[in-house]
Amino acid sequence: MTSTWQQIATEKKSRQLDSVPQEWLNSSLPSEETLSVINFPQETNVLSALDREITESSVANLLSNLASRKWTSVQVTTSFYKRAIVAQQLTNCLTEIFVDRALVRAKELDEHLEKTGTVVGPLHGLPISLKDQISIKQIESTIGYVSWVGKFAEKNSVLVDILESLGAVPFVKTNVPQTLMWPETFNHIFGRTTNPYNRSLTSGGSSGGEGALIALKGSPLGVGSDIGGQVSIRIPAGFCGVYGFRPSYNRIPYAGCVNTMEGGDSILSVLGPLSNSLDGIKTFFKAVTSKEPWLKDPMVIRKRWSEEEYNLIDHGNGKNLCFAIMWDNGLIVPHPPVRRGLEITKAALLAAGHRGILSSLYLNTVIDWKPYKQAEITKNISDIWAAAAEEDFKTVVALSGEPVIESMGLVQSEKELLFRPTGSGISAFALWQLQKKKRDLRQEHLNHWEDTASQTGTGRPVDAIISPLAPYTAPPHGLNKYGQYTMPLNLLDYPAMIIPVSKVDQELDVKQPREDFYTADDRENYEQYDPATYENAPVSIQVIGRTGEEEATIALSEIIDEALRGAKSKL
Amino acid sequence: MTSTWQQIATEKKSRQLDSVPQEWLNSSLPSEETLSVINFPQETNVLSALDREITESSVANLLSNLASRKWTSVQVTTSFYKRAIVAQQLTNCLTEIFVDRALVRAKELDEHLEKTGTVVGPLHGLPISLKDQISIKQIESTIGYVSWVGKFAEKNSVLVDILESLGAVPFVKTNVPQTLMWPETFNHIFGRTTNPYNRSLTSGGSSGGEGALIALKGSPLGVGSDIGGQVSIRIPAGFCGVYGFRPSYNRIPYAGCVNTMEGGDSILSVLGPLSNSLDGIKTFFKAVTSKEPWLKDPMVIRKRWSEEEYNLIDHGNGKNLCFAIMWDNGLIVPHPPVRRGLEITKAALLAAGHRGILSSLYLNTVIDWKPYKQAEITKNISDIWAAAAEEDFKTVVALSGEPVIESMGLVQSEKELLFRPTGSGISAFALWQLQKKKRDLRQEHLNHWEDTASQTGTGRPVDAIISPLAPYTAPPHGLNKYGQYTMPLNLLDYPAMIIPVSKVDQELDVKQPREDFYTADDRENYEQYDPATYENAPVSIQVIGRTGEEEATIALSEIIDEALRGAKSKL
Repeated sequence: MTSTWQQIATEKKSRQLDSVPQEWLNSSLPSEETLSVINFPQETNVLSALDREITESSVANLLSNLASRKWTSVQVTTSFYKRAIVAQQLTNCLTEIFVDRALVRAKELDEHLEKTGTVVGPLHGLPISLKDQISIKQIESTIGYVSWVGKFAEKNSVLVDILESLGAVPFVKTNVPQTLMWPETFNHIFGRTTNPYNRSLTSGGSSGGEGALIALKGSPLGVGSDIGGQVSIRIPAGFCGVYGFRPSYNRIPYAGCVNTMEGGDSILSVLGPLSNSLDGIKTFFKAVTSKEPWLKDPMVIRKRWSEEEYNLIDHGNGKNLCFAIMWDNGLIVPHPPVRRGLEITKAALLAAGHRGILSSLYLNTVIDWKPYKQAEITKNISDIWAAAAEEDFKTVVALSGEPVIESMGLVQSEKELLFRPTGSGISAFALWQLQKKKRDLRQEHLNHWEDTASQTGTGRPVDAIISPLAPYTAPPHGLNKYGQYTMPLNLLDYPAMIIPVSKVDQELDVKQPREDFYTADDRENYEQYDPATYENAPVSIQVIGRTGEEEATIALSEIIDEALRGAKSKL
Repeated sequence: MTSTWQQIATEKKSRQLDSVPQEWLNSSLPSEETLSVINFPQETNVLSALDREITESSVANLLSNLASRKWTSVQVTTSFYKRAIVAQQLTNCLTEIFVDRALVRAKELDEHLEKTGTVVGPLHGLPISLKDQISIKQIESTIGYVSWVGKFAEKNSVLVDILESLGAVPFVKTNVPQTLMWPETFNHIFGRTTNPYNRSLTSGGSSGGEGALIALKGSPLGVGSDIGGQVSIRIPAGFCGVYGFRPSYNRIPYAGCVNTMEGGDSILSVLGPLSNSLDGIKTFFKAVTSKEPWLKDPMVIRKRWSEEEYNLIDHGNGKNLCFAIMWDNGLIVPHPPVRRGLEITKAALLAAGHRGILSSLYLNTVIDWKPYKQAEITKNISDIWAAAAEEDFKTVVALSGEPVIESMGLVQSEKELLFRPTGSGISAFALWQLQKKKRDLRQEHLNHWEDTASQTGTGRPVDAIISPLAPYTAPPHGLNKYGQYTMPLNLLDYPAMIIPVSKVDQELDVKQPREDFYTADDRENYEQYDPATYENAPVSIQVIGRTGEEEATIALSEIIDEALRGAKSKL
């Protein structure tokens, strides 16, 4: 007799439990009512002092201590594994756990270094977490579909091959929503991933497992994917208070991964890094693009990491930059803490100036960004997905009989959120018309950006936009409803970096009276807010560059991040 | 009363005739029975000796004589205009003719140079011809649709803006097939463009006007588009014996052009140059990519011309290259002259060696290329077009009532050729499945190419593939049936250069007996051949590079071209 989808899910979950070494399990966990668990790893005696020192090191520090053989890869990988299991117990952020295999690889790297005196590559010995869809040979990539339980990858995805050739040690895979198209992380196999800053809040999606894991320092560097703003790298990174980067289409190889809505060539999903520091982001991006990924994945643009562009050749060599802040998008006004995050950033940029490549200090200008057709752009991307998404999902769930999840709320019947693309599908010709519209929107937005040259005082258009990533910080489960701050960038193909700025402050972020609203959604979002609900939630900003400007977006983000840290150190 | 489509077409054609200065018209043209008109411009007294000297100069020579003020742009533009009108009388290759406007622009450039002593840009004063779809402000871009007569462009396409900023002088637009999707150049407004080497043969499509014009030296440099192999830059370039280059997707800006099947995001059309020398091709590509086209067109890849890649950094710095020849694609064996073209190339490469960047002479290796799934790839691209092409064409012709052309034959009812994509259309979901298949085919073909590293003796995969562009030289009108040599590259997104090698030789290219055939099409193609039918037709080859390797493909083509010219000079 064949198994029901429930039996298959249960069996898979129990295999996952079996894959965790018992001695790493913490038997005295915080109670379910404990909302913030972000500091728990610092207290648990499952982790030694050395485990904590290692897992709280920056990527740069880890790599340098690995290369100098101060720490072995076995040591570092074990420490992160132990902390990842703590994170799993606290937030349910993992899918695949393969300790033996990762430690064998770590040992090989240690032996290589000991024998040859040289590192395998720039990521030598570093454990890396991967969103569930990134295939590793002989490991499942269910992406939350019961239908795909038991499908073991026949080979590595191209990215895993490249990461291994760089010396990295893939060590866990992380949780996602069923279909990858839900904006919160929940599925029938692994359940829900919560936010470690406040477990009554969502970790976001679709890379929610990465967000929660990295926030708890259970991984130094992770890889997520950004399909459509709400379902992204950026939402989980921002909601969980870590750095996250959405590169433009086709710079990081995607070949060999499991995906949703495959063949939808119009709005491309991208892979990108999450980390606790920008040095982790840059290290990943530079290392992967330096490995000629276009020789392994036909979609990847033949373009090496450009040190020139990183040195801001297209931005006056980094002198006197002009940033533009999008305070709101003209559709939904962000909650007070989100607004405060932007204000902190503006003040920090104006106060700090920034250091150019010649170490001279230059002035920053900050102007207001005028939003352009955010509603139309968001609608167009939704319409393009809806052209065939429903049939795609139904085709997959039919294999096991599991239902398509209808809501991300705690009680399924509540239907707080029906975010995913729906619709009965359209013809290829109708899809072409939407895609033509998309091209026009991209052209108009490019022109809109170019036109800012007259307002910056630098002779150039705005160097980067600073924007909210959502009109709220991480909301309660089931309420991550509005994608208008992130989705447009997937259509416009702008790279974007998430930078953590602050946390919800019960005193500073009080609710202010408001009477005029852009839309009904704007009013609903306003009414949803009170600081207590969002207690302790991270506040983050989104730094947006021009298409293909990964190097410059990283450099500009470093300037902003330095200003923010400078401002903090003066408090 | 509204006009019939026939009246609209007649009125437009008569406006075209009125746009030609009467004094440039030749009253003693070759008779209609005269097949080859390729040498007529050298004889006609419409052209002066200086006109001939100018129009027979290379692009490099023209630019240098323009910059040194030996020749004015008014002089050069006038000479090419006169010769273009001769070409028009001989082969019917033009659509839009705007003498006054072009000469005003040429005069401005001359005055600028006289006044400032500096050129406006690297194309200063050079007349450039444009395929009809490339919009110029206030000029029509009908692309052979009666429906679009009278639609005057509101602004320049991005490419025209860039060409003008480089100093070029757009001076004519050139003929195309109705819909741009037919492989020969014929429409209800402008009629048919014939092949100047033998007017009973087709000039190919869809850039057939460019092919005929440049072969007759009526333009030093033209821009065509390559949508799908048969409908391309390459077929007209090869059939008309000129150089032509299909770059990869999104390096040359396409924004603001009129197009067919818009919104079909999967197989992208590209713009590229045609010229009588490789220096024309390189000059165009380098100049345009140096103008940061990504700031004007959101689709363009942010990648400057790479001198490093042109110096063959990815090909052992150009030492000891290995080329692979695809003698046939396993589906249709090429006619004898096409085979001979490949043999000439192989012999020239082996005999010559080639000069590396340090001027040392290196050896070439030539191996056989094993074709990979050419039929499947060709079918996939056809299926993707057919997903919505018919509805696209019908939507446009409905505006004027003109019929969709069913055949490229001289007699429409013969239906020699029903090449265009047909079908009643499919769902968006079905299209996604085809596009997923496409991605897999691209991945497999990339792997196939990478795997050649074991056969080359260089440690690298094959440096470039040399292939026929069709299983025949230019065939009689209506018989350009088989796209399997060009279409796959539009799916695989490989850059490809057309290089003219020889002409059909009545003695060397005799028909050989054959008994085994791959397919019925192979037999039909064999039976169609006799050297007399193809008299004087140019023989060309196609040089194929890796995705995004424009710079290297140009450099490798120069090496092949030099070897071919070296071999000729020894005869």
